[in-house]
Amino acid sequence: MIKSDVKNLKLAADGKKRIEWAESQMDVLRLIKKRFAKEKPLKGIKLAACLHVTAETANLMITLKEGGADVSLCASNPLSTQDDVAASLVADYGIPTFAIRGEDRKSYYRHLNDVLDFHPHITTDDGADLVTLLHTERKSQLKEVIGSAEETTTGVIRLKAMLKEGALKIPVMAVNDSDTKHMFDNRYGTGQSTIDGIIRATNVLLAGKKFVVAGFGWCGRGLASRARGLGAQVIVTEINPVKALEAVMEGFEVMPMDEACKIADIICTATGNKDVLTLKHFKLLKEGAIISNTGHFNVELDYAGLIKAGKSVRVLRNNLEEVILGNKKIYVLGEGRLINLAAAEGHPASVMDMSFANQALAAEFFVKNRVKLEVKVYTIPEDMDQNIAKLKLDSLKIGIDVLTPAQKKYLDSWQEGT
Amino acid sequence: MIKSDVKNLKLAADGKKRIEWAESQMDVLRLIKKRFAKEKPLKGIKLAACLHVTAETANLMITLKEGGADVSLCASNPLSTQDDVAASLVADYGIPTFAIRGEDRKSYYRHLNDVLDFHPHITTDDGADLVTLLHTERKSQLKEVIGSAEETTTGVIRLKAMLKEGALKIPVMAVNDSDTKHMFDNRYGTGQSTIDGIIRATNVLLAGKKFVVAGFGWCGRGLASRARGLGAQVIVTEINPVKALEAVMEGFEVMPMDEACKIADIICTATGNKDVLTLKHFKLLKEGAIISNTGHFNVELDYAGLIKAGKSVRVLRNNLEEVILGNKKIYVLGEGRLINLAAAEGHPASVMDMSFANQALAAEFFVKNRVKLEVKVYTIPEDMDQNIAKLKLDSLKIGIDVLTPAQKKYLDSWQEGT
Amino acid sequence: MIKSDVKNLKLAADGKKRIEWAESQMDVLRLIKKRFAKEKPLKGIKLAACLHVTAETANLMITLKEGGADVSLCASNPLSTQDDVAASLVADYGIPTFAIRGEDRKSYYRHLNDVLDFHPHITTDDGADLVTLLHTERKSQLKEVIGSAEETTTGVIRLKAMLKEGALKIPVMAVNDSDTKHMFDNRYGTGQSTIDGIIRATNVLLAGKKFVVAGFGWCGRGLASRARGLGAQVIVTEINPVKALEAVMEGFEVMPMDEACKIADIICTATGNKDVLTLKHFKLLKEGAIISNTGHFNVELDYAGLIKAGKSVRVLRNNLEEVILGNKKIYVLGEGRLINLAAAEGHPASVMDMSFANQALAAEFFVKNRVKLEVKVYTIPEDMDQNIAKLKLDSLKIGIDVLTPAQKKYLDSWQEGT
Amino acid sequence: MIKSDVKNLKLAADGKKRIEWAESQMDVLRLIKKRFAKEKPLKGIKLAACLHVTAETANLMITLKEGGADVSLCASNPLSTQDDVAASLVADYGIPTFAIRGEDRKSYYRHLNDVLDFHPHITTDDGADLVTLLHTERKSQLKEVIGSAEETTTGVIRLKAMLKEGALKIPVMAVNDSDTKHMFDNRYGTGQSTIDGIIRATNVLLAGKKFVVAGFGWCGRGLASRARGLGAQVIVTEINPVKALEAVMEGFEVMPMDEACKIADIICTATGNKDVLTLKHFKLLKEGAIISNTGHFNVELDYAGLIKAGKSVRVLRNNLEEVILGNKKIYVLGEGRLINLAAAEGHPASVMDMSFANQALAAEFFVKNRVKLEVKVYTIPEDMDQNIAKLKLDSLKIGIDVLTPAQKKYLDSWQEGT
Repeated sequence: MIKSDVKNLKLAADGKKRIEWAESQMDVLRLIKKRFAKEKPLKGIKLAACLHVTAETANLMITLKEGGADVSLCASNPLSTQDDVAASLVADYGIPTFAIRGEDRKSYYRHLNDVLDFHPHITTDDGADLVTLLHTERKSQLKEVIGSAEETTTGVIRLKAMLKEGALKIPVMAVNDSDTKHMFDNRYGTGQSTIDGIIRATNVLLAGKKFVVAGFGWCGRGLASRARGLGAQVIVTEINPVKALEAVMEGFEVMPMDEACKIADIICTATGNKDVLTLKHFKLLKEGAIISNTGHFNVELDYAGLIKAGKSVRVLRNNLEEVILGNKKIYVLGEGRLINLAAAEGHPASVMDMSFANQALAAEFFVKNRVKLEVKVYTIPEDMDQNIAKLKLDSLKIGIDVLTPAQKKYLDSWQEGT
Repeated sequence: MIKSDVKNLKLAADGKKRIEWAESQMDVLRLIKKRFAKEKPLKGIKLAACLHVTAETANLMITLKEGGADVSLCASNPLSTQDDVAASLVADYGIPTFAIRGEDRKSYYRHLNDVLDFHPHITTDDGADLVTLLHTERKSQLKEVIGSAEETTTGVIRLKAMLKEGALKIPVMAVNDSDTKHMFDNRYGTGQSTIDGIIRATNVLLAGKKFVVAGFGWCGRGLASRARGLGAQVIVTEINPVKALEAVMEGFEVMPMDEACKIADIICTATGNKDVLTLKHFKLLKEGAIISNTGHFNVELDYAGLIKAGKSVRVLRNNLEEVILGNKKIYVLGEGRLINLAAAEGHPASVMDMSFANQALAAEFFVKNRVKLEVKVYTIPEDMDQNIAKLKLDSLKIGIDVLTPAQKKYLDSWQEGT
Repeated sequence: MIKSDVKNLKLAADGKKRIEWAESQMDVLRLIKKRFAKEKPLKGIKLAACLHVTAETANLMITLKEGGADVSLCASNPLSTQDDVAASLVADYGIPTFAIRGEDRKSYYRHLNDVLDFHPHITTDDGADLVTLLHTERKSQLKEVIGSAEETTTGVIRLKAMLKEGALKIPVMAVNDSDTKHMFDNRYGTGQSTIDGIIRATNVLLAGKKFVVAGFGWCGRGLASRARGLGAQVIVTEINPVKALEAVMEGFEVMPMDEACKIADIICTATGNKDVLTLKHFKLLKEGAIISNTGHFNVELDYAGLIKAGKSVRVLRNNLEEVILGNKKIYVLGEGRLINLAAAEGHPASVMDMSFANQALAAEFFVKNRVKLEVKVYTIPEDMDQNIAKLKLDSLKIGIDVLTPAQKKYLDSWQEGT
Repeated sequence: MIKSDVKNLKLAADGKKRIEWAESQMDVLRLIKKRFAKEKPLKGIKLAACLHVTAETANLMITLKEGGADVSLCASNPLSTQDDVAASLVADYGIPTFAIRGEDRKSYYRHLNDVLDFHPHITTDDGADLVTLLHTERKSQLKEVIGSAEETTTGVIRLKAMLKEGALKIPVMAVNDSDTKHMFDNRYGTGQSTIDGIIRATNVLLAGKKFVVAGFGWCGRGLASRARGLGAQVIVTEINPVKALEAVMEGFEVMPMDEACKIADIICTATGNKDVLTLKHFKLLKEGAIISNTGHFNVELDYAGLIKAGKSVRVLRNNLEEVILGNKKIYVLGEGRLINLAAAEGHPASVMDMSFANQALAAEFFVKNRVKLEVKVYTIPEDMDQNIAKLKLDSLKIGIDVLTPAQKKYLDSWQEGT
């Protein structure tokens, strides 16, 4: 009997089909799974993951298990769990899973602890939750940990802050910093799935709308590009002058949020910071404005403050709440949580393919290098990163050029030329 | 007690919220509703509509009723009905409605007859179904009909064919031919909602995919533009050389379907014709190709032929079927029916706003001009059309320029100039 | 000895190479030239053309001559003449040509009269100049004229105004109204060549600039699309609500010129009307704003009024004047004349290919139908129009689909279906 | 009397206006010039620059001179010199300048030596030419040099190769590596100016053309984006899998050059390597194909090999040569040299503004830190880089957001959150 806490094991059949469909889009991970099944590089390793519990994550778990690991999984976000997938992981794949869509804060933390109860050698995080728990309430387990892999930009920022302060006690791998992760997942995955989430929640036409994107990082630029691609007039807010200038050069309008919020039809935050939209901004919104977040947990927009200030609140559709603030109606999506997970299905499988290829290889890297690892923030070696991209191109049947020896020499040489 | 055939009247509360949310996006129709409520231009008129039974259509029905008409509604497509909206129309708005999502062919036709049983003076069609029934099985009612309004391109083509053959017996209004209808609804509405339907059915990443759009009419170019906007590499097929050349100049690749189907990751038909994708093409598809239709009923792709030829078929997700054909897997969406209705919610409310403003004004036009109407295909007068656009701009708070008298004179004059 | 008035016959060698280069891009016209050379459909016809004297026009003249016509040519715009091409037409091709780049108003009108002195049977206009002269100062020649072909939108508007007033006395052909003309030449030709003209005149970076396009007709939307394609933030002004709304849905910002001119970095007019930018607007411009016109002669922006109001004016580069107005500098391009002709080379040859294929076929149409022509505004028959597009696709080696008999029947039928 | 070698000093008046026009677009450099004029940070310093001799470079030279330096200038490319600007630098600004457009190899090298004859303390390169000369023929001067700044990607690659081999003997500054340089100049500057060069050389319509971009670095992606923006169907070739995959995700077609060259209408290389297009490829080109280079000197396409293999060659227009190869015509632009410099005017002033702001600050950095500089490749400190972007935004009157103390703390903290 497998330990687990999922909504309903009877959902497993649907979850299995969902996992198989995702697998059909995850060519790189499938190749790694095949190799892992043969080589068993993770034999004897216990691995606990705190990730969005989706069909794509399921394929990562299955891959790691094929590699010989004992794996367990909990949710990194209470709203993103696909209950049928969680059920199938338990029922069909024998993987201890602890996640129920919409679970409350208490269950959420209990589930974090559930996977740490397995005493993992490797942890995998989407926002540094397991690492945080290991460094606060469960310090005694730190010595058992070989390393921890982190999936997100904001998680990596947090880990680096810990390292800087001397608080970090274990080696970590910034999976997010692989080119094949952040340049694809954050840009193309978040771009499309955020649009998807907003449309599923509202069914509004984006063409002609003033769409404000807060933050022009990888996520923000992906979102800005897709919103424009659907006909919106996109406005960008930033705090970094170089990124702001890039946005200008890409043809976007740039202005401070205090101005942008006055003319926005739709706002979506993607900054990785908190308090990007606060009561000050809500008061400036136009009648009918829609606000949402795709960046970081639910701290980017002050949902609690909005609800408290509203005269009345009602749920019009799934993930769409109408709030009467003063004498205007404004609409908030998914309670301010990541809208691509709350209202849509998160990143498409083909983009998670590369992110999770990095995760699988990160686990292998930790095991292979376990004796020499230092307490620092590692990144995936460049040749592994390039190789993931090459496998993806191969799966798309796309060929590229190869440098001739003469060209290699030319690039390396400073004497030839002009 | 209102006559009706809906799934479950208990769904009405959800439907009402959905109708209200749509109404918040339909500014032009709301203005017309206000005027209709005061002027009652449709007093004494019975109006039967065969349209997609969605929240937007509900707002049209309510507007027509406010105008004084006795209205009834059935579905123009078995897969697009929103059961909660149908329930609310009956329970909250007292409108006889006959539509159940997923109804079979027999129920579908019974519902068409149900609304004609009211002996309408005006009919409204989305594909000429009521008009066809009136001209075949229910000829005796033709004399009771003042006029019929048609929503779609393909319906209008059919009505013109009837007129040409001398088969048409009643005045019709080609609502589709209004600029504020086909230039917006077909292009921006179909563009976004088709993408939405494909993503909801599959959750595939569009970026980098070879996406084939069959047909570069208003629907096709909307879809091509949005697919490109989401990062797909778009290929267009056409039968009209001028449209094909436009597609080329817009930077799309153009080729015959026999070639396009060999390299497609995703195909979506939008031609208004039948047999665009047949068994010949299915055999040429790549492993993993996804096929879908957003054009006209389910005749554009030969779904029945595909299912028959397939070794096995299974439903992986809602609206996503895997068919094993020879030794490859291909995927078909929504059984070949309009994917934006089958898997998503049809056109967004703000674009239906203008289409249905045209419908409401068409009904008024029929009544006002009833004594002088001829058996022909009418279009909305240009000033009504321009006025709808002006109302929409006003609702967006967008100002435009006005010709000065000197500029008007300049445009009208041939003596001034050079 | 050929009658002519060109700058310098010694430029002919350069002009000939330019004509040959253009010919290499004009596949459709080349096919027509071959047929004309064999069939001589214009034998015995005198044809006078008033067009931009460019390498592309040269190829039209040569084609018409190959068809058997006696042709003569003058300039429709004093700033667009390519002097080397004019020289080559005279020296290498024996075509009487009257055009000198930068000629004054007096020479301009003398040249119009020069070509009419040949007593043409057919005239070809780019802005209705020859037609106007024939209907005012040279009425006695009207009876000699079989028909006149018009190239531009504004010319056609003028001819229709003449027809409406009963002032038109000869059959005219609105070449501009062919799909293969206005949908390509006005949109893609003007789009690219206007951008080209602005960059050659200024070398400013378009990325990040606020670029205002006045008018969202075929020219304006081509320009707006290309300006956005180069990274500008495009703002559109319009007088037609439907077009304004289309611009909004395409993601452009729309506002009245009174507001747009305050924030513009660059303005380009493309309306076909006069007084689009007047002193009122110049006073509202930002320091450093650049203004230009690509629409209609030099009446769209009040260049004379600007120069008069300016404290000082100096030419900084070819086609770039700095005007000190009040205490700010503003820049005007090409003296307010069509910037794509003044500063660049007009439409690229491959787009003029189709426009001039229409012109060549218009001349043939006049001759073939001379006995039955009425005084009205003709358009190119649709099958000729479609055929030009087909020839162009063939030259690009692009295949398209063909309707099957069953599909044709389906489209024509109203009984099949649903 | 100033030492110099320019084409004609009488061109100075035109050059001066050109320099002033450029200055009007260079807001950041102007602010630095003002400060330099007051602070004189380069007093007593001799600075030799080998850069494209354009109006923008003139503004850099003037700025450095205002800062107190004795400056001299030669050309880094024989085809890019603006002779009127060179004349004005000598006549109006008293700056020794050695550059004549179209100069032969011998003059080119003499001019390099001319500026080194001034025994500079600081050198500035665009392709490492002065540094190479200092490390080969003029080693005795190395000890006089404080540091050398390098403008280009390929120059930096060469300098790093020298450093790796131990061949580098002086501190160098990779100006190219500033965000405000390579992210703007290489992307937006090269993107627009390359398109500009190709159109000026050919006047071909880009809409509908198959446009192959070799290399998807900063230059290549700028070019690809602009070519698409003008309606071309863009194909990318790459040697790096990650970049190739990015191109795919952006919707470009990716394939090896061996395939791309067979279907290309236009090819432009932007790789920084040699032999990207060789005789092997030329033989595969279609009739009428156009080939060009915007990457690195004239080694990217084997111009000499092409000319040698051609049956005949003739110049059709400036920078456009027709080569008969076998039985087909192909066209090569600007003799394979950088087409944005050969046929257009190089980067627009507003983008060079930031690049040259970096150059000016690099010179100041060398002087300020002269005592502690090591032999290595420096980059501009991040705060200087950010500040340049901030100044640019200010000049555009664009505001951005500022982190609140709470937000700063949140980003720095690992304890808050979730």
